[in-house]
Amino acid sequence: MTTITSVDVVDVRFPTSLTADGSDAMNKDGDYSAAYVILRTDDPELSGYGFTFTIGRGNDICVLAAEQRALPLIGRDVAEITGDLGAIYRELKSDSQLRWLGPEKGVEHLAMAAVMNAVWDMAARRAGKPLWRLLADMTPEQLVDVADLQYLTDAITREEAIGILAELAPTRAERIAELEQTGYPCYTTSAGWLGYSDDKLRRLAQEAVDEGYRHIKLKVGANLEEDIRRCRIAREVIGPDANLMIDANQVWDVPEAIEWVTALAEFRPMWIEEPTSPDDVLGHAAIRKAVAPIGVATGEHGMNRVLFKQMFQAGAIDFCQLDSARLASINEILSVYLMAKKFGVPVCPHAGGVGLCELVQHLSIFDYVAVSGSLENRVTEFVDHLHEHFVDPCIVENGAYRVPSLPGYSAEMHESSLAEFAFPEGSYWAGARV
Amino acid sequence: MTTITSVDVVDVRFPTSLTADGSDAMNKDGDYSAAYVILRTDDPELSGYGFTFTIGRGNDICVLAAEQRALPLIGRDVAEITGDLGAIYRELKSDSQLRWLGPEKGVEHLAMAAVMNAVWDMAARRAGKPLWRLLADMTPEQLVDVADLQYLTDAITREEAIGILAELAPTRAERIAELEQTGYPCYTTSAGWLGYSDDKLRRLAQEAVDEGYRHIKLKVGANLEEDIRRCRIAREVIGPDANLMIDANQVWDVPEAIEWVTALAEFRPMWIEEPTSPDDVLGHAAIRKAVAPIGVATGEHGMNRVLFKQMFQAGAIDFCQLDSARLASINEILSVYLMAKKFGVPVCPHAGGVGLCELVQHLSIFDYVAVSGSLENRVTEFVDHLHEHFVDPCIVENGAYRVPSLPGYSAEMHESSLAEFAFPEGSYWAGARV
Repeated sequence: MTTITSVDVVDVRFPTSLTADGSDAMNKDGDYSAAYVILRTDDPELSGYGFTFTIGRGNDICVLAAEQRALPLIGRDVAEITGDLGAIYRELKSDSQLRWLGPEKGVEHLAMAAVMNAVWDMAARRAGKPLWRLLADMTPEQLVDVADLQYLTDAITREEAIGILAELAPTRAERIAELEQTGYPCYTTSAGWLGYSDDKLRRLAQEAVDEGYRHIKLKVGANLEEDIRRCRIAREVIGPDANLMIDANQVWDVPEAIEWVTALAEFRPMWIEEPTSPDDVLGHAAIRKAVAPIGVATGEHGMNRVLFKQMFQAGAIDFCQLDSARLASINEILSVYLMAKKFGVPVCPHAGGVGLCELVQHLSIFDYVAVSGSLENRVTEFVDHLHEHFVDPCIVENGAYRVPSLPGYSAEMHESSLAEFAFPEGSYWAGARV
Repeated sequence: MTTITSVDVVDVRFPTSLTADGSDAMNKDGDYSAAYVILRTDDPELSGYGFTFTIGRGNDICVLAAEQRALPLIGRDVAEITGDLGAIYRELKSDSQLRWLGPEKGVEHLAMAAVMNAVWDMAARRAGKPLWRLLADMTPEQLVDVADLQYLTDAITREEAIGILAELAPTRAERIAELEQTGYPCYTTSAGWLGYSDDKLRRLAQEAVDEGYRHIKLKVGANLEEDIRRCRIAREVIGPDANLMIDANQVWDVPEAIEWVTALAEFRPMWIEEPTSPDDVLGHAAIRKAVAPIGVATGEHGMNRVLFKQMFQAGAIDFCQLDSARLASINEILSVYLMAKKFGVPVCPHAGGVGLCELVQHLSIFDYVAVSGSLENRVTEFVDHLHEHFVDPCIVENGAYRVPSLPGYSAEMHESSLAEFAFPEGSYWAGARV
């Protein structure tokens, strides 16, 4: 019997604010960070790695919350835990005292994501499979057993969920073979951060085109005149047929969003991302109606499956950008994918930050193989930062994620990165005298 | 010049789980707790006290978050801080790194509530007024200046908000005089906790009637047969004309809620409280439509003003039960009251826990005096627990809160209570050997 012997949670922070990487109208100076969970077992060959993503201050609060949330795992049989990944999820989320602090949102939910991401990573490693394949090898009933359908049954029943998965089950192998040839399509945000100069924007957009991207995304929302100028530059570089997305990072009220996006309509954005509060289902629905045919996208701050349920029910979004480290891991993400399929909304996961690209490649591949069976209007974010800190970094070629092949959820960081960027004791921060 | 010299945040926990006080279908064993903020100044006569409420584990996480959120207050001029309570609120909430952890929800928002509650308490003490009167002495423009209308302007504009307040401004004094005679009507939940026996329920319900209450509330949702039996007992005791409320504490999915409440309709509940996820605006709207004329109430877990905006816009609730320690203090609560007035929804604040009754009396009185001008369908929760720990405890007589008269927000706890119940070092917990 293999037993979980300890849980370490590390506060890892990268000084990204120094270069304005990741700058946008709401988040001007983020230091990309992870509350990084390591589940250790008495088998030296088996650990589990997972994290949630934050942008700096408060990462220590997530670390503390993850330490507490993970306590019930210590001393447990790995075979028991990984043998029923629905049961352990429900057990961890059943703590009613911790539930009060959300419920199922904010710091506690981020911590739940970090811990359950590590549990899923451990399960995939134990099975000797990349996470996407662990999922693709599960039956429709097994998948629905791990999905969290609490509060969702007015939108999707267990039977409907099984039906969706059963329809594509016989042809999963074909789509796996296809993706192993082509990869999964992605777009880049690396060009369009708000803090970059026009010259840097032009140069990076041209590089993106040269690397085979057909979509690029710009941050907007700080200054309308500058947005018009930057959108014009981007459109000039990518040409009339490639896709331009714009992202306001929640800076507008609903009427302002409608006005501003309308003023940028001449650049034919494919979507406006995060036009207003991520909690505002009805606000997104109103914006979507007003700015069509420009699509509305949101989800990186989508707090839980109940929010996404309502986004689908209200016809509020054209693109669902769920976040792999904000939703409570596969158990909750599966439910969102199943609802998205039922309501006909493509899922284009949020990525970037630190390590999110490593996670979402597994999600998008699984979605195509087993849930949606479609690539139409689907494109997954890719940001070319911080991958060097991961043992099994994602690989992007010709604007597509290559299918990962190593066991796990690709979440493990190098020991040397932890030694350098652990906060505040790592060598970088100790030297920076924060 | 008076300066804020330090911020202490104390983890205070009361062992309420031992007596099943506060037990319901979701929360079986809460230890009522507070992350309790003390703003100290270099004037030994002036401090500020505030808190957020939790039910035990994770209270330390809120303490850490409150310590971080309060950092910008240290060293600041009290006159500057209390002279522009909108500015300090916006400053504290503008930290974009901490915002990522919500935004405006969960642990970070609870911590913001704790800190800003202490700031408002300090402002009222400095003015030598109870908080409700500090607010009642502000002009409509001053009140709207401190209200947080971000993300709300599609529901209420600044001009509308000023108009609402201006309408009642000339007659505020009349309603103050009235409440000083009658108090503000309340109801009791003390009788109906789920863990109580039928005999205890019957006895406590009778005591409530004898004390002048016209409303009592029962917890439901664990077992339908037991709920029927308990509702029958309660209805027998209170008679056909008094008001019975039922509270499910979020245990149902939407279809289940409709079915269960329909089965209890014969007892003519005035409202069903928290029938499902507190995040589910559209779910509450569906339940409300299905169970009318039984009202739908929710709000104690209502995470922020954007959620309440949607509850109002969707016609999802008959009663708004905002929480004084979950919303980010007066700045956000004011916005919810203003929207409630515009949309015609009575606000019946959540209370109980520890110290919430002390806070909400100020809110309800201010609402009647300056915002709604109505007592129709309005009744504020009262639970008779833990008031002995407060320096200025609320006083309830004949089913009504007496108008508080001492300066502040009534949030200060006795030093002796902190010494006993600070966790884990207080004398009670040290003795309990947790």
